Amino acid sequence: MKTTALIMAGGRGERFWPRSRKERPKQFLSLTNDGKTMIQLTVERILPLVDMEDIYIATNKAYMPLVMEQLPGIPKENILCEPVGRNTAPCIGLGAMHISGKMEDAVMFVLPSDHLIKDGEGFRNVLRKACSVAEQGDNLVTIGITPNYPETGYGYIKFIKDEKTGDSCKVDRFVEKPSPEVAKEYLSTGEYLWNSGMFIWKVSTVLDKFKDYLPDTYKGLLRIRDSIGSADQDAVLNEVFPGLESISVDYGIMEKAESIYTIPGDFGWDDVGSWLAVERIGERDENGNILAGNAVNIGSRDCIIQAEDKLIAAVGLKDIVIVDTEDATLVCDKGSTADIKKVLEELRQEGKEKYL
Amino acid sequence: MKTTALIMAGGRGERFWPRSRKERPKQFLSLTNDGKTMIQLTVERILPLVDMEDIYIATNKAYMPLVMEQLPGIPKENILCEPVGRNTAPCIGLGAMHISGKMEDAVMFVLPSDHLIKDGEGFRNVLRKACSVAEQGDNLVTIGITPNYPETGYGYIKFIKDEKTGDSCKVDRFVEKPSPEVAKEYLSTGEYLWNSGMFIWKVSTVLDKFKDYLPDTYKGLLRIRDSIGSADQDAVLNEVFPGLESISVDYGIMEKAESIYTIPGDFGWDDVGSWLAVERIGERDENGNILAGNAVNIGSRDCIIQAEDKLIAAVGLKDIVIVDTEDATLVCDKGSTADIKKVLEELRQEGKEKYL
Repeated sequence: MKTTALIMAGGRGERFWPRSRKERPKQFLSLTNDGKTMIQLTVERILPLVDMEDIYIATNKAYMPLVMEQLPGIPKENILCEPVGRNTAPCIGLGAMHISGKMEDAVMFVLPSDHLIKDGEGFRNVLRKACSVAEQGDNLVTIGITPNYPETGYGYIKFIKDEKTGDSCKVDRFVEKPSPEVAKEYLSTGEYLWNSGMFIWKVSTVLDKFKDYLPDTYKGLLRIRDSIGSADQDAVLNEVFPGLESISVDYGIMEKAESIYTIPGDFGWDDVGSWLAVERIGERDENGNILAGNAVNIGSRDCIIQAEDKLIAAVGLKDIVIVDTEDATLVCDKGSTADIKKVLEELRQEGKEKYL
Repeated sequence: MKTTALIMAGGRGERFWPRSRKERPKQFLSLTNDGKTMIQLTVERILPLVDMEDIYIATNKAYMPLVMEQLPGIPKENILCEPVGRNTAPCIGLGAMHISGKMEDAVMFVLPSDHLIKDGEGFRNVLRKACSVAEQGDNLVTIGITPNYPETGYGYIKFIKDEKTGDSCKVDRFVEKPSPEVAKEYLSTGEYLWNSGMFIWKVSTVLDKFKDYLPDTYKGLLRIRDSIGSADQDAVLNEVFPGLESISVDYGIMEKAESIYTIPGDFGWDDVGSWLAVERIGERDENGNILAGNAVNIGSRDCIIQAEDKLIAAVGLKDIVIVDTEDATLVCDKGSTADIKKVLEELRQEGKEKYL
């Protein structure tokens, strides 16, 4: 069966402010030192398994020019513009409908556009295994990441140890972000994986699940499908999509359906969820710092400094993140990176839209 | 007797980097919100006691244009340019020789150009008292600041409690910057004052002391005096001054001479020795922060943020100093402000002279 992919690239990436901005969120930035952006790396990573013409990018209209600029090989009609963000279920449904309009059936990878993966071949091996599971019956497959520390920022997947076939495990249930104690417990049982947000299924299977569990959404998606290629395509999308229920595929389908499998993966995955990820990706100096750009450090330890041309002098700091850009500088305690979004709220309230 | 003043303005003010630079040190900056620079405030403060034409500014050649720009009322011949810095004794000797060339004798105030004083009238009252003591015999008078906490960054003056006449006290000795324990002890005795570096004496008296305690310096100063007003003035200064011993007036004269008096003062003095002074000068918000310029704060406490036009976002910080300028940003732990000079050393070593 043919393999296709839907890459979800509509996120705003606020946690990477001030480097990420409304008009250029995280997936369109390079956070590695190869100069490639996150979305370019995401596409490059699956090209051995999927033809360029079978890769779909779901994003919002504002990012269309960025997608075209950064991924010139993707056919223009494969760039799906959501009129508004409606969480992952409608996004995935839109992608599935586009694919189903082009071919009888296909395996569909659903991938975030802003995760990093160190071991590309290891990742593809997991995808290959996932394909063979997804091709059978109405299996829904999710990639679970073998956890190596008790992260509290991720959801977890509990699998059933006794129901392991080859490399795939039957999923017992999905659980929300745990407390530190619970996360430690999860790790100790060996029955929990990190929920990576990557899915593999047949287009026909996932559309059946929409029909079963999200019937209203399914009806809307059918109306959209019928308009694809017609003169009304944009008008129908703009009319129907905003009315679809905003719900995640995890909550709308995965937690309700049977036949959920997970393939545990260990391929250097990172969801790059905050500036702290820079430490996991990069090389620390002898004092635990990650320094980039025009920076001078006197006695600071365990800091992340992302300077550009302007000189940043760090003196005697501990566990501080400094990110400089043309018009804004962030100085943030490592324990407070979740509050970066409050900066954006404050800026909105003060009418300082230009910094968003 | 006529009153004159020598304002010492040759310092580099490295501790106020990056706002202070080689070409514009602290005394030429405004650190208060009245827009006036430190040296302008220094002159303004003594104008009720000293005629503008009797105020002398000792500085180095590079700052001559700044002095002329900021203090247009000072006669050009009163701006004394030291070819090189030689600490306070040669600087004061140079000033005394210039004054002695113009008038028979005079009282001379010697004042730093980069201190802040909240109560100007209180300060002038102390100067008035100091004048009357300095006019008698060969008294040397220094202003001692009544300490209100055990500061370890200042030298102290020990006075003799039993030898108090009116408001002036006989000085027992000068002591170096103490340890925290010793500073506390000093405070508890009530016999120690902070050494403010402000002196009052007759020109004739201080020149006599140079003759007694720094005879080689005195001889050099005489050669300089003989050239004042002649075509050779600059040439002689440039030849003689660099050869004078580099020594402070405290060490060269005050610690050796008899008849040293101090007038204790309590007029809201601050030597503005580091960025931490901003807290003593300014108003803190309810979280103990001092914010200036285009700054957004989310949850930071006890921070000093001196932004300019560029947005500075501080998130979850504690006891951090952030100072932004056009081409450099300092982020410094409050406990490490003494290490700011190491930044300058590092920049020098890296050949990044443009930031100095």
